[in-house]
Amino acid sequence: MMSIVARPRAGIVALIGLLALSTAARSLGAQTHQSVFLSPTEAAAIRGALGKTPLLDRSFAEARAIMDSAFAHPMDVPQPGEAGGYAHERHKQNYREMEDAGLLFAITRDAKYARFIRDMLEKYAVLYPTLGPHPMAQNQAPGKLFHQSLNEANWLLATAIAYDCVYDWLKAAERARFEANIFRPMADWLSVAQAKEFDRIHNHGTWATAAVGTIGYVMGDTSYVNRALYGTKRNRTGGFLRQLDLLFSPDGYYMEGPYYVRYALMPFFQFAEAINRRQPSLGIYEYRNEILKKALYSALQTAFPNGIFPPINDASRTMAIDAPEVVLALDLAYQHYGPNENALGAAAIQNEVILNSAGLEVAQDLARRTTPPRMSWGSVEFTDGPTGENGGLGILRAGRGRDATMLLMKYGVHGGGHGHFDELHFIFFDDGREVVPDYGFARWINIEPKSGGRYLPENDTYAMQTVAHNTVVVDETSQSLAKERVADTLSGQRRFFSTTNASIQVMSASADGQYPGVSEQRTMFLIRDQRLPYPVAVDLFRVNSDREHAYDYPIHFRGQLITTNAKYSADSALQTPLGTAFGYEHIWKEATGIAPQPLRMTWLDGNRYYSLITAPGDSAQVFFGRTGAHDPNFNLISEPLLMIRAHAKQKLFASAIEPHGYFSEPEERSEQARPKLQQVRIISDNADASVIDVEGEGGLHWTVMVSNSTPSTTSHHHVVANGRAYDWTGNYAVEGVQAAH
Amino acid sequence: MMSIVARPRAGIVALIGLLALSTAARSLGAQTHQSVFLSPTEAAAIRGALGKTPLLDRSFAEARAIMDSAFAHPMDVPQPGEAGGYAHERHKQNYREMEDAGLLFAITRDAKYARFIRDMLEKYAVLYPTLGPHPMAQNQAPGKLFHQSLNEANWLLATAIAYDCVYDWLKAAERARFEANIFRPMADWLSVAQAKEFDRIHNHGTWATAAVGTIGYVMGDTSYVNRALYGTKRNRTGGFLRQLDLLFSPDGYYMEGPYYVRYALMPFFQFAEAINRRQPSLGIYEYRNEILKKALYSALQTAFPNGIFPPINDASRTMAIDAPEVVLALDLAYQHYGPNENALGAAAIQNEVILNSAGLEVAQDLARRTTPPRMSWGSVEFTDGPTGENGGLGILRAGRGRDATMLLMKYGVHGGGHGHFDELHFIFFDDGREVVPDYGFARWINIEPKSGGRYLPENDTYAMQTVAHNTVVVDETSQSLAKERVADTLSGQRRFFSTTNASIQVMSASADGQYPGVSEQRTMFLIRDQRLPYPVAVDLFRVNSDREHAYDYPIHFRGQLITTNAKYSADSALQTPLGTAFGYEHIWKEATGIAPQPLRMTWLDGNRYYSLITAPGDSAQVFFGRTGAHDPNFNLISEPLLMIRAHAKQKLFASAIEPHGYFSEPEERSEQARPKLQQVRIISDNADASVIDVEGEGGLHWTVMVSNSTPSTTSHHHVVANGRAYDWTGNYAVEGVQAAH
Repeated sequence: MMSIVARPRAGIVALIGLLALSTAARSLGAQTHQSVFLSPTEAAAIRGALGKTPLLDRSFAEARAIMDSAFAHPMDVPQPGEAGGYAHERHKQNYREMEDAGLLFAITRDAKYARFIRDMLEKYAVLYPTLGPHPMAQNQAPGKLFHQSLNEANWLLATAIAYDCVYDWLKAAERARFEANIFRPMADWLSVAQAKEFDRIHNHGTWATAAVGTIGYVMGDTSYVNRALYGTKRNRTGGFLRQLDLLFSPDGYYMEGPYYVRYALMPFFQFAEAINRRQPSLGIYEYRNEILKKALYSALQTAFPNGIFPPINDASRTMAIDAPEVVLALDLAYQHYGPNENALGAAAIQNEVILNSAGLEVAQDLARRTTPPRMSWGSVEFTDGPTGENGGLGILRAGRGRDATMLLMKYGVHGGGHGHFDELHFIFFDDGREVVPDYGFARWINIEPKSGGRYLPENDTYAMQTVAHNTVVVDETSQSLAKERVADTLSGQRRFFSTTNASIQVMSASADGQYPGVSEQRTMFLIRDQRLPYPVAVDLFRVNSDREHAYDYPIHFRGQLITTNAKYSADSALQTPLGTAFGYEHIWKEATGIAPQPLRMTWLDGNRYYSLITAPGDSAQVFFGRTGAHDPNFNLISEPLLMIRAHAKQKLFASAIEPHGYFSEPEERSEQARPKLQQVRIISDNADASVIDVEGEGGLHWTVMVSNSTPSTTSHHHVVANGRAYDWTGNYAVEGVQAAH
Repeated sequence: MMSIVARPRAGIVALIGLLALSTAARSLGAQTHQSVFLSPTEAAAIRGALGKTPLLDRSFAEARAIMDSAFAHPMDVPQPGEAGGYAHERHKQNYREMEDAGLLFAITRDAKYARFIRDMLEKYAVLYPTLGPHPMAQNQAPGKLFHQSLNEANWLLATAIAYDCVYDWLKAAERARFEANIFRPMADWLSVAQAKEFDRIHNHGTWATAAVGTIGYVMGDTSYVNRALYGTKRNRTGGFLRQLDLLFSPDGYYMEGPYYVRYALMPFFQFAEAINRRQPSLGIYEYRNEILKKALYSALQTAFPNGIFPPINDASRTMAIDAPEVVLALDLAYQHYGPNENALGAAAIQNEVILNSAGLEVAQDLARRTTPPRMSWGSVEFTDGPTGENGGLGILRAGRGRDATMLLMKYGVHGGGHGHFDELHFIFFDDGREVVPDYGFARWINIEPKSGGRYLPENDTYAMQTVAHNTVVVDETSQSLAKERVADTLSGQRRFFSTTNASIQVMSASADGQYPGVSEQRTMFLIRDQRLPYPVAVDLFRVNSDREHAYDYPIHFRGQLITTNAKYSADSALQTPLGTAFGYEHIWKEATGIAPQPLRMTWLDGNRYYSLITAPGDSAQVFFGRTGAHDPNFNLISEPLLMIRAHAKQKLFASAIEPHGYFSEPEERSEQARPKLQQVRIISDNADASVIDVEGEGGLHWTVMVSNSTPSTTSHHHVVANGRAYDWTGNYAVEGVQAAH
């Protein structure tokens, strides 16, 4: 998907020569219209930089290729159709082509691009007035061209840019016709007929306000602009600014998670750029302590080392920072907030720039580099909730660039309608892969035969449920009984987060109320010991109640189970689901047994082995399972998991996950298929503190001590166990790690 | 895994300067020893070409990097250990390092490489005499350093090259010690103590003879050479020449399949090269009509367009033409048999050359190319069996380079102990993926915790069985009741093979006796119609018996089932295996129903959709399944399949497989998720001929006519059915295809 090296495309230089010959008869007069995205001056600068700036050349060539292909096919503006069907895709393609055509017209001054936009808008000017609300909206706010108004806003925002680029080239009568037949009715549809959606504090609202506001600027109609900025009531109970206030935590973390902020970054930045050009006095890029900068940077900083966004909440497992929305936001942020090494590394992964002065600046800075910059965000914690007081998201990283290891824990707000019931869930990413993964959404996005490409029933019944995640499940139910209404009132709480010691990084959080009467607390370390080739994750998950519960500790994995020391009975000839509700009904029970002390399991994923070494405690059960039960339409992806079940009032699950060895099937090479860590042992566990030992080959012996009381860096802890005393000050201490250099 | 573009490594040029300074005191005298692989003249030519020949530089730098790493670690010659364990891997690494050191010594004349070999051989000269037969041989012929003598032969062949390179540099006393303590005892162990293995017509025998013969040449002892060439009895009942006679069909096709010939190519070519240098009068490269050339070329020609060998019989799914054995064979064949465009394309995929004059020639020819050559073998049929009369292997290809589509049908000999019971099995490869795949072996090769990396029980109980393949299963049993002894007496028979019409390529074969009383015949087309974006596979599988049987037609696939028109009852809450034996016990039954007419199923694999459209006939059942039942050790890979079951005496399964559309999750784009083909209809089917219709959107209508009688290009066929007459001459005819240009 992503390639670091940008190469100059053959033919660029030849092309530039041709540009000079191409004239656009109607565009020779001075431009009076003030642009929202790309000014004639910027367009001229891009023209001058072509052939000398590889990434710019690449993006320019890509836009040209899209238009070459568009010119080679008949123009079509069909009657609206169903989601994912031909008409739906055609209208999407149309606005993308119009936007490209607009930018290419500005850059090349070749009138064929302007004619393309005019001719297509003429067709829309005929079609649009004949349309009523789309009949297949189902539960969404309907559009007219599309089944949902969200797509209509996508169309309008892109087309507003295209229209802006050809505004002066068009005849006044053409403009009047397009505005009367398309732009005003569509902007009214989005902001008046669908006022509720427009004022919603949600990415749908962002798209609608950005589209209506931008077309307002282009048409020179401030009533649309003000509606977009301040809401339909003009009192900031809705509108763009209110969304900037509420949709991000003070750190810029977006409540729905990175997959959704990726999508929202486009209207946020596209409209911000228009505001900045047309109403610079609003200081939109400075608004709320540069919240737009934080929004982009926090999104980039959540990305896995390969550029893919963690699939938190309803999200795809493959959406990455090279998505066009992030390219747009990154280039604009780079221009407005100044150069940044990691952002430039991200731009190198993106391998694409936008066609305005911001993209030009990024491309020029990259062109100056002799070695490509690496995206190497360090560890980071984000607060969540509008005031930053609703927990957060912790990310520990070790290593640099694409080889980095990353451990992510989720302890923020629920995330609304797209939220999953997964407080204290973690993802472990290593060697370019999501090794202990998040299932993401249950959706085959835009695949029409899979329920029109929409969310599938299994999204509610499995993907959202607690058991689909790597966090403890109580009594085979989900957190908040999987009720969004309840979950939205709750969040995790941060306990502590420390990365000052690069060899012993830690994050800790708690969750209370998700299971009434049960308090949960998880502390995760990312430990780098020079005796082990890769960083190790160490997990202390503590649950506490005054009543006995069944506590289930699931670890989802991928690849192939290689070996385990558990003695189990395999369900070889007859398989039944692991349970009956809250996602358990979707997991085939493959095997079960009494968990040994310690329990070890090694699996293979890619070219590396991974071992879980865990202290299950007395008489805990172990289950091996695989998704796919109660899935009559083959909607789920078949993936394995291991689960430990303990019945107790109070329970500490203590585990280590060690990456080790190497396997290459084509080379027929296998090295170190067994872990170096052998043992995880609970030394002491009480309301004040937990102490565990992690032991391995060659005398490796870590002692991990964690405070269970109110976080404090000065409190002293004293534990006597195992014939010795353990004393430390602060939230945690780890002994025995040989720091890697 | 494979990258086309070779880049010059930084530092090569600087290095060459250093070479001149390095002197090897003991090597200044004239070399009297005649080399078996790399002569001083060749070594000098390589020295001169460094820095000017990118692929040579790359391979040279790789060998140097290996030795740099070897020098950085303590030398270790441990006591023998278990397969896949440290000692086993260490001894493997040792011979690889000695061989690299030998070649680098010859090229650079840097004595540190010679000292490395000498020092290591000194250690082996101490260890080897103390060793008896390895105690963990299990069912294999034991080695002493390794659990099986095969690994010992690997060691000896590589070390013979190393020894050859430093022969003149060593002192006579050193040579005497190494020969007395290591080489003679080891050669005797392989050829006297293990005489049966040595004389075996099998790749193990090839390795043993090549190792013993090569060390014989290096030591100047013709008794070893003659034993290697003519067998332990010197009468050609065993030995290298006998293996060249019997292990290949006249076309060079290797009876065990491409995965095994890949492994055998190294001893065949390594020893041939030694013979050619030391006994050129034997004309080894010309032997049996240049059988070595055919052996290599037939192997290359079986490869999928991405370079991976089809996993026929017991084979890995990832072994590719860039394996070192194929690099060696390709370079030597290129030198001895002359340049070839496709071989050069294969060398570009390999991205590596051997360090002698043959590798130099390939690297120089590649360096002269401005655009990298593409490996684009056309369609090809191989005969099988020593006389070429035991069926064969058919490969139809459309398209060029990596984008080609490939359809492979297997109808040759059983393939011995590694053979699968899979006559008339097919593989469909498209868009860089094995779309209708072969399961390959059930083995996690060299992964020690998985039964020492050896074959797993599920290899016999599942992977070898008929149902694990894409061929008809009769009465839920396997061909020849899965008895190798029986299967070895049988083979498929070719019927016809024609690729003269690039739009309508066809292969046809039969299998009789695999199921007593049942004759089977399969005709497969690869059809390129300009109305469809990709080539389509059309399959007519005809079974015939005078008793009623249950005929099962399985299609294995990967990826995700998207949709089917079958009404089925899903085994959502309780799963049982599909059957009780012959591999059926390993398949979970996920759903079952009555197959509609036609039956359609669409699945997603990679970025493309695939649809099976088939005419199941009246009251056939359809099953959806997934491997994994009766797999208590999690040895199997979880993969889906569809199966049609018909009870009949005579049955024609008629199907089409259409690749279509595009899906990218990160782009959230899906196009044409439904096939253009709608219908497959059996018009007529009798002992003389079968006629089917394939119909699709936009009036697409193919009529496919196949003769069922003895193949003849002149016989006339006349069928009246469906209100019209179908007349054609020859084995087949297809109407209605609009040829693609």
